[in-house]
Amino acid sequence: MKKTIGHRGINPTGETTYKKTTSSALKGAIQLGITHTVGSLTQKPERDVLLQDFEVVDSIFFPNEGSNLTPAHHYGDFKFKTYAPIAFRYFREMFGIRPDDYMYSLCNERLIELSNSGASGSIFYLSSDDEYIIKTVQYKEAEFLQKLLPGYFMNLNQNKRTLLPKFYGLYCVQAGGKNIRIVVMNNLLPSAVRMHVKFDLKGSTYKRRASAKEREKAVPTFKDLDFMQDMADGLMLDNDMYTAVCKTIQRDCLLLQSFKIMDYSILLGIHNLDQACRERDSEAAADPRKPQGQKSLYSTAIEAIQAETASMGSLDTEDKTGGIPARNSKGERLLVYIGIIDILQSYRLAKKLEHSWKALVHDGDTVSVHRPGFYADRFQRFMCNFVFRRVLRKHESCLTEHYDKVSCSENTHIEDFTNYMYTNGLKPLITKPTTINKHRHLRPFTNIYNI
Amino acid sequence: MKKTIGHRGINPTGETTYKKTTSSALKGAIQLGITHTVGSLTQKPERDVLLQDFEVVDSIFFPNEGSNLTPAHHYGDFKFKTYAPIAFRYFREMFGIRPDDYMYSLCNERLIELSNSGASGSIFYLSSDDEYIIKTVQYKEAEFLQKLLPGYFMNLNQNKRTLLPKFYGLYCVQAGGKNIRIVVMNNLLPSAVRMHVKFDLKGSTYKRRASAKEREKAVPTFKDLDFMQDMADGLMLDNDMYTAVCKTIQRDCLLLQSFKIMDYSILLGIHNLDQACRERDSEAAADPRKPQGQKSLYSTAIEAIQAETASMGSLDTEDKTGGIPARNSKGERLLVYIGIIDILQSYRLAKKLEHSWKALVHDGDTVSVHRPGFYADRFQRFMCNFVFRRVLRKHESCLTEHYDKVSCSENTHIEDFTNYMYTNGLKPLITKPTTINKHRHLRPFTNIYNI
Repeated sequence: MKKTIGHRGINPTGETTYKKTTSSALKGAIQLGITHTVGSLTQKPERDVLLQDFEVVDSIFFPNEGSNLTPAHHYGDFKFKTYAPIAFRYFREMFGIRPDDYMYSLCNERLIELSNSGASGSIFYLSSDDEYIIKTVQYKEAEFLQKLLPGYFMNLNQNKRTLLPKFYGLYCVQAGGKNIRIVVMNNLLPSAVRMHVKFDLKGSTYKRRASAKEREKAVPTFKDLDFMQDMADGLMLDNDMYTAVCKTIQRDCLLLQSFKIMDYSILLGIHNLDQACRERDSEAAADPRKPQGQKSLYSTAIEAIQAETASMGSLDTEDKTGGIPARNSKGERLLVYIGIIDILQSYRLAKKLEHSWKALVHDGDTVSVHRPGFYADRFQRFMCNFVFRRVLRKHESCLTEHYDKVSCSENTHIEDFTNYMYTNGLKPLITKPTTINKHRHLRPFTNIYNI
Repeated sequence: MKKTIGHRGINPTGETTYKKTTSSALKGAIQLGITHTVGSLTQKPERDVLLQDFEVVDSIFFPNEGSNLTPAHHYGDFKFKTYAPIAFRYFREMFGIRPDDYMYSLCNERLIELSNSGASGSIFYLSSDDEYIIKTVQYKEAEFLQKLLPGYFMNLNQNKRTLLPKFYGLYCVQAGGKNIRIVVMNNLLPSAVRMHVKFDLKGSTYKRRASAKEREKAVPTFKDLDFMQDMADGLMLDNDMYTAVCKTIQRDCLLLQSFKIMDYSILLGIHNLDQACRERDSEAAADPRKPQGQKSLYSTAIEAIQAETASMGSLDTEDKTGGIPARNSKGERLLVYIGIIDILQSYRLAKKLEHSWKALVHDGDTVSVHRPGFYADRFQRFMCNFVFRRVLRKHESCLTEHYDKVSCSENTHIEDFTNYMYTNGLKPLITKPTTINKHRHLRPFTNIYNI
C-alpha cells in the first residue's frame, strides 16, 4: 500500500481514494451530479449573468435508492453542489462548449484517472475525448476561485485569448461527512501528441530543478534551472507569434497580480516533430492514434494567444492539436503547448506560501507588499526574454515553412537557420549533450497537472 | 430671489448656485477638471479593466494661480476628483466615444444650463452638441453608482443594447469645503426634436399625476395617470420593434432588481410627425435647426433597443435622431424617445423611499422583502401591456411605410389603420379631447432629467 499524499491515498484493493472515498465512487458521483446540474440548467431560461450569480451554490441530494429528482445508484448517499451555475454556464458558452457536449464528454464516457498526478495530493481525471481535466481542489482553492469569478468574467470579456486555465465548472461531492471539491477545466496537453519534454516554469531559480525522483519518471516535468541549462537558447518563435505569446502573458499576469496571485507556472510541453520522425523510423510501430482537434474554443495553446484579427498567414499549419510552431537551437521543428497553471494554490497552504516568500527573497524581492508585482514581472521577463525568443521577420520563413505539412520531410533549412543564429549572436547548442535527450523515449498519455 | 430646492439656489445676481458655488464657477471647474483627467488618461497605456479599478479615485488640485500640472484660472482653488477613471474610459470606449470628442464636447464648447430641471435640487448642463448631460448627484447616489459599476460592466458586456442611463463619467468638484459630485451621461431627448408630449412613467398609480404647477410649464412632464387617461390606447409598435423594446426593458429590469433598485421611471418623449407638419403649416417659421445625428453608439432610443443582428428592414427611417417609429390611436406617425431614468435616487432620500413604500402598499405589495421584484414586474407589465402595444405583422406596413421619408406627406393610411384597430377591438380616441392636445404649442429645448 502506497503512501498517502494529502487527501489522496490507496485502499487495500489498490484503488485510489480521496478523503476515503474510492475513485470509482467519486467518478460515479461526479457523473451523476454533472448530468443533473447541466440538465436542470438547460430547463432554466437563458438570462444575463448578474453579480450575485457568482455567489450562488445549488445543492441536490442523491440518495442511494433514488428520488423523484435523481436516479438510484450503487454508491453511498451523497449531495452534489454546483457553484455559480449561471456564471459557469456563461463561461462555457464563451468557450464555445455546448451543454450537450459538456455533459456527454464528462458523463457518458469513461473518466480516465491520471496516474502521474504530482505531489499536490489531488486526483486528476481526463475525459475520454481528451477535452476536459477534472481535478480535486482544497476548500481554500475553491473559495478563492469563487472570489476570483467576477474578475475572471471581466478578463474573459476583454480577453478571450488567455493562457489562464479555462474553468468550466466548480462542484462539490458531499459524501460520508466529507466535502470533495472538484474543478473542471481545459486539457492543456493533448494526450495524442507525444510530449518529448515538459517544463513547469516560474521564472525563479530557487530550488527550481526537477528532483531525482521526478527524473526517474517516463515524462519528467523539468523546471527553470533545467530549462536554463538544457535549452539555454530558448524557443524560437516568429515575430508575430512571439508578440502574441508575450502580449497574452502580459495581460494574464496583470490579472493575476491584481488578485495578488503568485506561485503560478507556465506548463510547457514540447513535441519535437523532427525527433518524432526519427523515432517513427527507429521504433517498431508508430502510435496508431492521430492528433485530434479539440472542440472547445480558445482551449489550445495557439488559439489562446492568437488574436482574432491577426493574420498568421504562413503559420496556419495542418496541425489540429493547437501547438505553437517553434524551433529549438538545432533548428528542429517543434510544436509548443503552453498554459498558465497553479493559479489557485497560493491560497492553499501556509507552507507553500512560505516557500514562495523564501523564493522571492532569494530572488531579490525585499519589500513583501510588492510581491505579486515582483513575481509577475520576473515571470514575464523570464518567459519573454529567455524561454521565448523572437526571430526577425526576414528569417521567419526558416521557422515556418516546414509547418505547411506536419510531415517527416527533410530538414533542409537547418543549416541556414543555424548560420542565421550565429550571425545574430545566438549560440545554438547543437553539440552540447542535454539531459532532455536522455528522455527521448517518452510514454505518451501521461500528463501532470497542477492548476 | 427664488426659493432654494435642495442644494440648488439662486444668488442675488440671479445666477444659479449649488452648495453656494455659482454655476459659472462649477462649469469652469468641471471643464478644467475633465480636460485634465481625460488628457492624463490618454497618456496612460491601454490596459484591461480590473475589478479594483472600480474603486479608484484620482484627485488633482487646481490652485487659482496654476501649478506645473494645472493652468491658472479665475475661480477659487478647487480639487477635482475622478472616480474609476479606467473603468469609465472603458465604458466610453464601449459606447464608441473617442477621448478627443468627449473632451471637446464637454470642455471646449459652452455648457448649457437647463432651466427646467425638476424638483430634485440638481443642476443639469447640456453640452453644446446635444450629446451629453451633466447632472449634480448627492453623496449617496455617487456612492451607489460606484457600487453599481461591476454589475454595470457585466450588463454592458452582455447587453450593449440597454435603456439604462449611459454613464460616461463620475466626478467631484471640491470647493469651499463642499463636495459637488457630478455624473456625465447620454442625452435622451435630442433638443433639436420638438417633443409634443413627455411622460415620466413608473407603472404606479399612487400620486402619479402631473401637478397643477407642472402643467403650467411649456413642456410638462406627465405621469402614469395622465398617460392612462390621455393615451388609453398606448403607442402602437410594429411586431419586431415591440419585441425589441420589451426584451430590453425586461433585461434592464432584471439588473435593476438584482441591485434592489426601485423608483426608476421611463422617460418618454413623443414627437408627432403629423402634428409637426400641421404646426409648420400654421406657424410663421419652422425651427431652423434640423434634427442632428447623435455621435455616440447605442445612445439613441432606437439603438438602445434594436439588436445588432435584427433585420429591421422597413423600419430604417431617414430619421437620424434615433426615435422609435410608432403610431398613436389616431394613426398619426410618432417618433418615440425613451430611456430608463432615476436609477440612483432610491438610495438618496429616506423620505423618497418612504414614498415608494407607500406607493407599493397602495398598489398591492404587502411583503416588503419582495419590493424590488414587485416594482420591476409591475413596471414591465405597464410598459409592455399598456404603454407599448404590438401591431401584428400583416398590418405592419401601416405603421412603418410612411417613415421611409420623415416628411409631411399625406397620411393616406390613417383610415385603414383606424379600421384595423376597430376590427381588432382597439378603440382609437380620435374624437376624445385630450389634455395633451392643450399643450400642442411646446417650446423645444427644454428637457427634464431626473436620473
